[in-house]
Amino acid sequence: MSGRMIQWSEHASPWLRGEGPDSDVVISSRVRLARNVAGFPFLLKAGAAQRRELCQICRAKLLDASMGRTLVWMDLADMPALERQLLVERHLISRQHGQGDKIRGLAVSDDESVAVMVNEEDHIRLQVIYSGMRLADAYRAANAMDDALEKQIDFAFSDKLGYLTACPTNVGTGIRVSVMMHLPALKLTGEIEKVQRAARDMHMAVRGFYGEGTEALGDFYQVSNQTTLGRGEQEILTDFQDQMVPQIVRYEQEARAALAERRPSLLDDRIQRAWAVLTHARLLGSEETLYLLSHLRLGLCMGRIEGPDLQQVNDLFALTGPSHLQRIAGRVLTGSERREFRATFVRQRLSER
Amino acid sequence: MSGRMIQWSEHASPWLRGEGPDSDVVISSRVRLARNVAGFPFLLKAGAAQRRELCQICRAKLLDASMGRTLVWMDLADMPALERQLLVERHLISRQHGQGDKIRGLAVSDDESVAVMVNEEDHIRLQVIYSGMRLADAYRAANAMDDALEKQIDFAFSDKLGYLTACPTNVGTGIRVSVMMHLPALKLTGEIEKVQRAARDMHMAVRGFYGEGTEALGDFYQVSNQTTLGRGEQEILTDFQDQMVPQIVRYEQEARAALAERRPSLLDDRIQRAWAVLTHARLLGSEETLYLLSHLRLGLCMGRIEGPDLQQVNDLFALTGPSHLQRIAGRVLTGSERREFRATFVRQRLSER
Repeated sequence: MSGRMIQWSEHASPWLRGEGPDSDVVISSRVRLARNVAGFPFLLKAGAAQRRELCQICRAKLLDASMGRTLVWMDLADMPALERQLLVERHLISRQHGQGDKIRGLAVSDDESVAVMVNEEDHIRLQVIYSGMRLADAYRAANAMDDALEKQIDFAFSDKLGYLTACPTNVGTGIRVSVMMHLPALKLTGEIEKVQRAARDMHMAVRGFYGEGTEALGDFYQVSNQTTLGRGEQEILTDFQDQMVPQIVRYEQEARAALAERRPSLLDDRIQRAWAVLTHARLLGSEETLYLLSHLRLGLCMGRIEGPDLQQVNDLFALTGPSHLQRIAGRVLTGSERREFRATFVRQRLSER
Repeated sequence: MSGRMIQWSEHASPWLRGEGPDSDVVISSRVRLARNVAGFPFLLKAGAAQRRELCQICRAKLLDASMGRTLVWMDLADMPALERQLLVERHLISRQHGQGDKIRGLAVSDDESVAVMVNEEDHIRLQVIYSGMRLADAYRAANAMDDALEKQIDFAFSDKLGYLTACPTNVGTGIRVSVMMHLPALKLTGEIEKVQRAARDMHMAVRGFYGEGTEALGDFYQVSNQTTLGRGEQEILTDFQDQMVPQIVRYEQEARAALAERRPSLLDDRIQRAWAVLTHARLLGSEETLYLLSHLRLGLCMGRIEGPDLQQVNDLFALTGPSHLQRIAGRVLTGSERREFRATFVRQRLSER
């Protein structure tokens, strides 16, 4: 496994590509497994030496279990904060994993579809993420890698409870499946709250753009299963994939159709304003940019505006994040410099057809 | 004097033309005289018969004192509310004069520079309004008409106090001079509050777009003298014209220069966003429109954007008002119909070069 830094191109992660089934609503599908190494304490109780040993073990075993992928290893404790923030913006690590100075790592495949956090909340958090509605594929890939790893590492496991995890909500299968959904029409019509309530009733969590505890920026919602204990992995996956997600997709599509039929001016107003401001503003904040991009994306998906291609807009969701912008600028930018650089960058990108 | 309705063209009042000295900051200059007819009670105590008689007297005498102008008389009690609202939007009558069903009238010259409200707060409120910084001219015209009227009507007058008026703040000369100023840069830099405090110290009132008790929509401020008692007309005028207004003009011009030098991105951001939204939105509220037009006007006055000509933008300040829009549409429009019609109208006007 290489220790060098990935050379990020000026594109967002491939899973933001906007391809795959239902990609007008489902941005990406993610399966995450939580595993812990038997014979080591959970991380809350682990000292620096144990953390270091866990990193060494996992780094080596992940290489053996990489299933032909090229995995890059990163020691996060040694990494500048800006680089860690870049990983957060690319959804390769959680916000928590990006912060602090404890010994921890990340193994990431070159296409960014596989990312393994070591020493986050659990010893191992393995995620597979694909563009569009491809949960089954993501599950297969995660499962294969889990099986391969399990041949190398003795996981903490209880015959009664299943996989043991630091947080009780993950105990059992240790699996979390989630999809990132783009729900601008439900937001515009105000029905998003009904969906959130319905999701809770179905034991799903609806979270923001960067996961737990974050806001639903740019009308992006991360929908995930809530509990893993007492249910089989396949059951969780099937429910989620065949029932819950398609239902929300249908709601969003109905809301889009209703807007187009009953309130076309409201719809086009949001879309045209977004396009106008993105192509004219001289200062753009990151949150506002996400909302504008969201409305532009809605317009493109619905064929109500001719502008840049969807891929370009999808890229901008990630590339306009603070760390990406500074990476592109090649230097540290203050808040007001970022707003100006962001506006210039967005105008340039959107004028490329 | 004709009793027919003025045929409003699809242009704002001539005084909004944006001509005359300092017209980048001073939109218009206005002189208003308050007079009451001797032998009649103030209007708070006048009954319908007295109101009717006052209208008859004033209508006839105004004709004699029209100084060669064509004056049109309008009985406001018989006029549909929408037509009255149009007069308010054209600044020919006050909001109060537009409301209610009491007997009252308006005499207005065909170029709208002279407008005489009868039975507003005082029996006679005579206003002369010109484009740009032309207070002396407006004063001369108001004075000449006042002299001519005084030969026809015995005004309520006290040797000790001067002209008697319904509200004590107007007693004395009964004169109020005001200028409508466009102060977007002082608003942007946050210095407008300092100006308002300074104005109060100089016994000036700083009011909104439609006068007393209204908000400073679209960064327009109506600056007027506060007291008239105990001071000569010429003194009031000279102070206002030579000291106070030029000082605020200078503040605004300095604020514009400071923005251009120190915060060009902020300045151009507002200007470009205004232009973008005005030419792309599908729904526009009236207040938002005034602010957008304000920033666009700033950009045009400062030569920072090439777009429509200033006259076109000045016109839109008035033409996008609710009654003007309905007059242009030729029918009554609901609030949401207006927002849509306004956006369409603005897009069309701004695409005409």
